[in-house]
Amino acid sequence: MDTAAIYHRPESEYAFLYTEKSFRLRLRTKKDDVKNVYVLKGDPYTITTERWYLEERAMEKGLSTTLHDYWEIEVSSSTRRLQYGFHVVGTDGIECFYGDQGIFPYRREVVSEPNYYFRIPFFHQIDRFTVPKWAKETVWYQIFPERFANGDPMNDPKETLPWGSKAPDRDDFFGGDLQGVIDHLDYLTELGITGIYFCPIFQATSNHKYDTIDYLKVDVSFGDKTLLKELIHQAHQRGIRIMLDAVFNHMGVDSPQWKDVMEHGEQSVYKDWFHIHSFPLDTYQLTDIPETAVNLPYDTFAFTPMMPKLNTANPEVQEYLLHIASYWVEEFDIDGWRLDVANEVDHHFWKKFRETVTKIKPDIYILGEIWHSSQAWLQGDEFHAVMNYAFTDSIKDYFVHQKISASQMISGMNHQQMLYRDQVNEGTFNLLDSHDTARILTLCGENKQLMKAVMTFMFLQKGAPCIYYGTEIGLTGCDDPDCRKCMVWEQEEQDLELLDFMKELISLRKRLQSFVTEGKTEWEMIDDEKNQLAFVIKWNRQTIHAYFNLSEEPYLIEQGSDPLFSQQCQLLEDGKAELKKHGFLITC
Amino acid sequence: MDTAAIYHRPESEYAFLYTEKSFRLRLRTKKDDVKNVYVLKGDPYTITTERWYLEERAMEKGLSTTLHDYWEIEVSSSTRRLQYGFHVVGTDGIECFYGDQGIFPYRREVVSEPNYYFRIPFFHQIDRFTVPKWAKETVWYQIFPERFANGDPMNDPKETLPWGSKAPDRDDFFGGDLQGVIDHLDYLTELGITGIYFCPIFQATSNHKYDTIDYLKVDVSFGDKTLLKELIHQAHQRGIRIMLDAVFNHMGVDSPQWKDVMEHGEQSVYKDWFHIHSFPLDTYQLTDIPETAVNLPYDTFAFTPMMPKLNTANPEVQEYLLHIASYWVEEFDIDGWRLDVANEVDHHFWKKFRETVTKIKPDIYILGEIWHSSQAWLQGDEFHAVMNYAFTDSIKDYFVHQKISASQMISGMNHQQMLYRDQVNEGTFNLLDSHDTARILTLCGENKQLMKAVMTFMFLQKGAPCIYYGTEIGLTGCDDPDCRKCMVWEQEEQDLELLDFMKELISLRKRLQSFVTEGKTEWEMIDDEKNQLAFVIKWNRQTIHAYFNLSEEPYLIEQGSDPLFSQQCQLLEDGKAELKKHGFLITC
Repeated sequence: MDTAAIYHRPESEYAFLYTEKSFRLRLRTKKDDVKNVYVLKGDPYTITTERWYLEERAMEKGLSTTLHDYWEIEVSSSTRRLQYGFHVVGTDGIECFYGDQGIFPYRREVVSEPNYYFRIPFFHQIDRFTVPKWAKETVWYQIFPERFANGDPMNDPKETLPWGSKAPDRDDFFGGDLQGVIDHLDYLTELGITGIYFCPIFQATSNHKYDTIDYLKVDVSFGDKTLLKELIHQAHQRGIRIMLDAVFNHMGVDSPQWKDVMEHGEQSVYKDWFHIHSFPLDTYQLTDIPETAVNLPYDTFAFTPMMPKLNTANPEVQEYLLHIASYWVEEFDIDGWRLDVANEVDHHFWKKFRETVTKIKPDIYILGEIWHSSQAWLQGDEFHAVMNYAFTDSIKDYFVHQKISASQMISGMNHQQMLYRDQVNEGTFNLLDSHDTARILTLCGENKQLMKAVMTFMFLQKGAPCIYYGTEIGLTGCDDPDCRKCMVWEQEEQDLELLDFMKELISLRKRLQSFVTEGKTEWEMIDDEKNQLAFVIKWNRQTIHAYFNLSEEPYLIEQGSDPLFSQQCQLLEDGKAELKKHGFLITC
Repeated sequence: MDTAAIYHRPESEYAFLYTEKSFRLRLRTKKDDVKNVYVLKGDPYTITTERWYLEERAMEKGLSTTLHDYWEIEVSSSTRRLQYGFHVVGTDGIECFYGDQGIFPYRREVVSEPNYYFRIPFFHQIDRFTVPKWAKETVWYQIFPERFANGDPMNDPKETLPWGSKAPDRDDFFGGDLQGVIDHLDYLTELGITGIYFCPIFQATSNHKYDTIDYLKVDVSFGDKTLLKELIHQAHQRGIRIMLDAVFNHMGVDSPQWKDVMEHGEQSVYKDWFHIHSFPLDTYQLTDIPETAVNLPYDTFAFTPMMPKLNTANPEVQEYLLHIASYWVEEFDIDGWRLDVANEVDHHFWKKFRETVTKIKPDIYILGEIWHSSQAWLQGDEFHAVMNYAFTDSIKDYFVHQKISASQMISGMNHQQMLYRDQVNEGTFNLLDSHDTARILTLCGENKQLMKAVMTFMFLQKGAPCIYYGTEIGLTGCDDPDCRKCMVWEQEEQDLELLDFMKELISLRKRLQSFVTEGKTEWEMIDDEKNQLAFVIKWNRQTIHAYFNLSEEPYLIEQGSDPLFSQQCQLLEDGKAELKKHGFLITC
């Protein structure tokens, strides 16, 4: 047995309170190296008297990656305290005990040693990672406000171009606004989405508004506070939640704070609001500096001189930003905050942020923009979720880029899921494209069937899926700024067939919500050569089956009956079904 | 190569800001399985333009356990951002790349993939784990106040027994008090200790005072606030820090809050201060219930009915306890809080606790009583240290209990150290005995030479050592309550030779402080059969050597010159030295 590969970490994704009373444990072992794992557990104060180590419970093999198997079990305790260790039996017959002091031979004198056990000192509800129930059930729709719809030409910026008149360049304006969103709430309701994630809407210089001037104003070219209130009210009436984008890592150079620093230098009351290495700054003609400026005398987002980084360790900055965070929840009743460049802001600040906003609205959703593994932010006291690119990258690498095999995709997905507590995975934010990536249809080489297959696959994974505006009607676009094209509203230019498909997919997801969120996925068939795969999701004694075929070769399914949803699928007379290339079938 | 055994975790003890500008990385591999590890690193925004992955830096092999090697490197970044991955070369010649998405073959198309890297998004000082400099340099002395010295017979409890007249039973009183400590400050100064850790001194029922009645009063049998102020003032004048014991997990049944609950039941304003499962409670005649009572209608410390558990998730309780925590720092200028049963109180509370007390006194020391692995409490926003039993257990198991070999001891020590950031290990709290364990001399079978050897060994390890009162003059005692004997003050009954030894040991530790705290320990010789071992500590281009012999067989040392400290050691004429059983030698 490869004992060096065994891993567990107390008070982490390997040991966490799942519901009020049930605690989940995980153990990592080398793939196919271990036959059985048992947990030995009991109250820490009774090990000697009760000798509870004489009884053990078998763990179940859960997800696997190409390297590891993960074993799982759910435990409870009437005293809400637990001590636990693992009895691991290798496929080679070797047995060991793994606990807080490491790995030992599985012997009576070892397992009776109180200090050798891991601990769950007490089941504290206040420390439990929870995610609002609604957030697990939401189908999100991301809106880039400048490009969704122009509902009020009166507020258009001077240089506004005719709607959709060209592919967008970096500095183009097309006049999208909040009225445009209100005007199309019927459209969104019919589509079936239940949450809107808005890219920034506060006063800012650029079209993307990530260079904030004033966090307490709605950008005039988008509307005003009254209109925003109206939008939120109408959305709420339709059961649609609203999430705004908080750009707290940096400000825009046109903000009064930064301008004050530029003007007064070291005398500015805002000099400690940023990370300034040396003065004077006024010699820097920012407009002349490229976006890849190095050796600037102040920290920025990436190397973008227009976006000086905020010093969130400064209590004045904290107070300022926390006021903003509270203001839009208190006054506008928003349901979520998406946090831009969240990984580059300090943890200390995000803990205060969470405490502040959840005090006002306990079921608010906090979503961090983090593209990499995010354990540190998902411990229960910062975010509820991250933009789960690291998870969906595997899906895209298999379905879209065809860089990896189905097995590798599943390994990658499972690797990501095993970085987090189960409830994190249930409430996370899954997306295939956004304002920061090329559009999924474009990535699919405009192959609509492939796009439908990958979308369907994502909609069947744990986490709340997000649709980037226009994806549902066939909008295309390469990397930023091309992915920020104007939404197409002329029906004759919309892909209505795709739109219908997306409506059905959203509806399917809602019907299968409990399966996806609470069910257990098992991979039934993975054929890397044929590029075919099948899995089941089990929930509440029911099972749904899903089959996907990425191959030219037809995929014959033995039990094709009771189809819920399909594409490129032919039901055969004997109850079988056949999937052509990019075909899929979901049955119950 | 055993790729399944490779482990790294971003933003943890595997990746942490050590000083303001230097970041330390660790990687775990299977023992003796890997030849070289290199780190590939650079700014996340320049990987494509600068192709920094073409340069790599070798990591050094640091500590090892019986199962694993740990590789280390210190890195920096002018932009304070980093992306990093590991190039691992097995002893079998296999090469792999390990990053945020897992393990891949080491190939150009892999290492050029931005999303495959781990991230240090930004070097945030506010999130850095720091420990007060003084805490790394302190030699602690633990006082159990009821048993150290009776300086004022006027405040003795009614039932007080003559000092030292018998071995203590659970409920005995002997009259120790704060005046007794003041009276012996000269003694402690001569001993050389620089910090006193007091077991609880607040008003409470028992002799141990862990069943608090009033956290805002000094127990009348110990003295009063004026006397405590005087004690702290005098101690500070002598360069001795003061740490008090905060028992926040539970209260005593004689506290007004609990009595109110007993009296008014569900109508009590304090009913949510505890974890009460059902009313009424007044049928419980607590004095009749044994300490192992199960199925009580309320949660307790262990199964002790006299100690009802506090509900620290209740904001009223938080406010109450945080006021107490602040009060003794603000009004009495204490230097540290030792937190009783710290693991069973919620993290949410400890984060508030740290924020509250460090705001008043930024260099306060927060020490949690945790006997097991404690990563969750040592992330930088809760404790500075834990009572490091899990570390010293290995030392005792080898030296004292002779249950394990020297190699196993080192493996156990290294296993513990690799659970924490380096600065955690530097500031942690090492002890061989306490009011909760048998005394070290007793554990050593009253073999003084063995005790001296194990003490010396502990004093040479990272972390601040603590001496339990009386250990220095040969006090003995089995498990609680026997380990709480009255201190012996008659010189003729003190082991003055041992006292001199302890003074020298403390003095040695102070001289070698930088070696111990900042130096690097390397194990030079580990002979499990002969029970002999040697290590060096390197610091600032200097080296000290340490040799220990637990064997009957003499241990011949080739270079015994420049001895700093020794026992059972004979210097030979040719510069060699010979250690007899329990001998040790420290040279420079």
